[in-house]
Amino acid sequence: MKKTPPSEGEIWISGINPVREALLGGATGVSEVLLSRSDPRGQEIAELAAKRSIPVIQSDREQLSGLAGHSHHQGVALRMSEFPYADLDGLLDSPLSEREPLVILDSIQDPRNLGAILRSACFLGAKAVVIPEDRSARVSAAVIKVAAGAAVYVPIAKVTNVARTLLRLKSAGYWAAGLDIRGDLPLFEADLTVPLCLVIGNEQKGIRPLVRKECDLLVRIPSAGPLDSLNAASAATIALYEVLRQRLNLERRP
Amino acid sequence: MKKTPPSEGEIWISGINPVREALLGGATGVSEVLLSRSDPRGQEIAELAAKRSIPVIQSDREQLSGLAGHSHHQGVALRMSEFPYADLDGLLDSPLSEREPLVILDSIQDPRNLGAILRSACFLGAKAVVIPEDRSARVSAAVIKVAAGAAVYVPIAKVTNVARTLLRLKSAGYWAAGLDIRGDLPLFEADLTVPLCLVIGNEQKGIRPLVRKECDLLVRIPSAGPLDSLNAASAATIALYEVLRQRLNLERRP
Repeated sequence: MKKTPPSEGEIWISGINPVREALLGGATGVSEVLLSRSDPRGQEIAELAAKRSIPVIQSDREQLSGLAGHSHHQGVALRMSEFPYADLDGLLDSPLSEREPLVILDSIQDPRNLGAILRSACFLGAKAVVIPEDRSARVSAAVIKVAAGAAVYVPIAKVTNVARTLLRLKSAGYWAAGLDIRGDLPLFEADLTVPLCLVIGNEQKGIRPLVRKECDLLVRIPSAGPLDSLNAASAATIALYEVLRQRLNLERRP
Repeated sequence: MKKTPPSEGEIWISGINPVREALLGGATGVSEVLLSRSDPRGQEIAELAAKRSIPVIQSDREQLSGLAGHSHHQGVALRMSEFPYADLDGLLDSPLSEREPLVILDSIQDPRNLGAILRSACFLGAKAVVIPEDRSARVSAAVIKVAAGAAVYVPIAKVTNVARTLLRLKSAGYWAAGLDIRGDLPLFEADLTVPLCLVIGNEQKGIRPLVRKECDLLVRIPSAGPLDSLNAASAATIALYEVLRQRLNLERRP
């Protein structure tokens, strides 16, 4: 079979679960499904695609590995024209606090960090992730791979101006908490059970001044060692855990 | 200047502080120091090296970038024959609870995960990290790079048998808490202020049965989403944060 190398601007999602979820979740822009397995799990994928009139192409493992960029595709891949970003307005229509917080990434550059944050955001119950149009890693094949399926579950919205977005979210009832190594308050002393935007800054420069100005509070992750900074994805993960911990604590109280 | 590409089995530590610490800390197997700066900070490094009769070679930024694998070397690099692993016995001689917990990695495979865990362990105040001799990522140049300097500050011990090591640590007064997706107790409900070994399992397989058997308790990170697992480094980071949070909370109480 002739190999078709992936072209720019197309996204391959691979792996049984991510592909299954993309088909079940009604993702748009899906142009084809490639399969190199014919067992019941492969058949289920083929049937889901058929229901949505998406062509299913028999392929081989080698071709799938070439397209997915790795060999952990489990014999299934799905091609999309572009990553299906979510609409911020749609997110704002859903009730506050149902799934919290919103994660606002102020210019994360490293695709591995973006992928890791998506995975943590999904696991720890974030409602959505917001990234800027410019000066930010986009949701690429590499990001999707590191996110281990999370990119399909957590809505990801792209905005043109992070500071203005924060203003809007605040007038919709959200509080904006920025993670900052020099923040006033240790993370665990802040009340994170309010409707919350968690703002995470760039790997080197942190949160930009205009975005920082819109934060209602700046919190820091406590440290007990000689290093002066944590990896951006690790910091985001800790903050997401702390939000969930406080919310679960609250639920247990009468 | 002719470029010397790094050969296998040699480790380059770069950056002012990591190199300074390696020289001050008496790391063995240091064969040379490369410098591309002549300011006071560079001179201090040169003097520290001279005191230990380690040759100092004038270099340029480009060569240092090639050897370190990145450009954040601050004009200083140090070559070692092997990473200076710590001695577990020496660690056990220091008093309990001074810096806690011990992090036991039961077969982390991905160098990026090992590096990320070292960075979090250092930032969040772990006493040391223990890895098995076999079936584990070793401290390589890639690990050191991701650890962002942490590999110099946190002692890393290599052991032949993780289960036996846990037995020994437990008889020395430590409690062993394993992170497990199916653990009995949510992380934040466990008392993590005791002398603690935090056991983190392999990325795919989790903690091996013989090691799990030695755990006094199995804790799980709470989740609120459709994913069934978190990245191993993210999980370790959350657990380290929770230990520190509980300890800081305890200190604040009378």
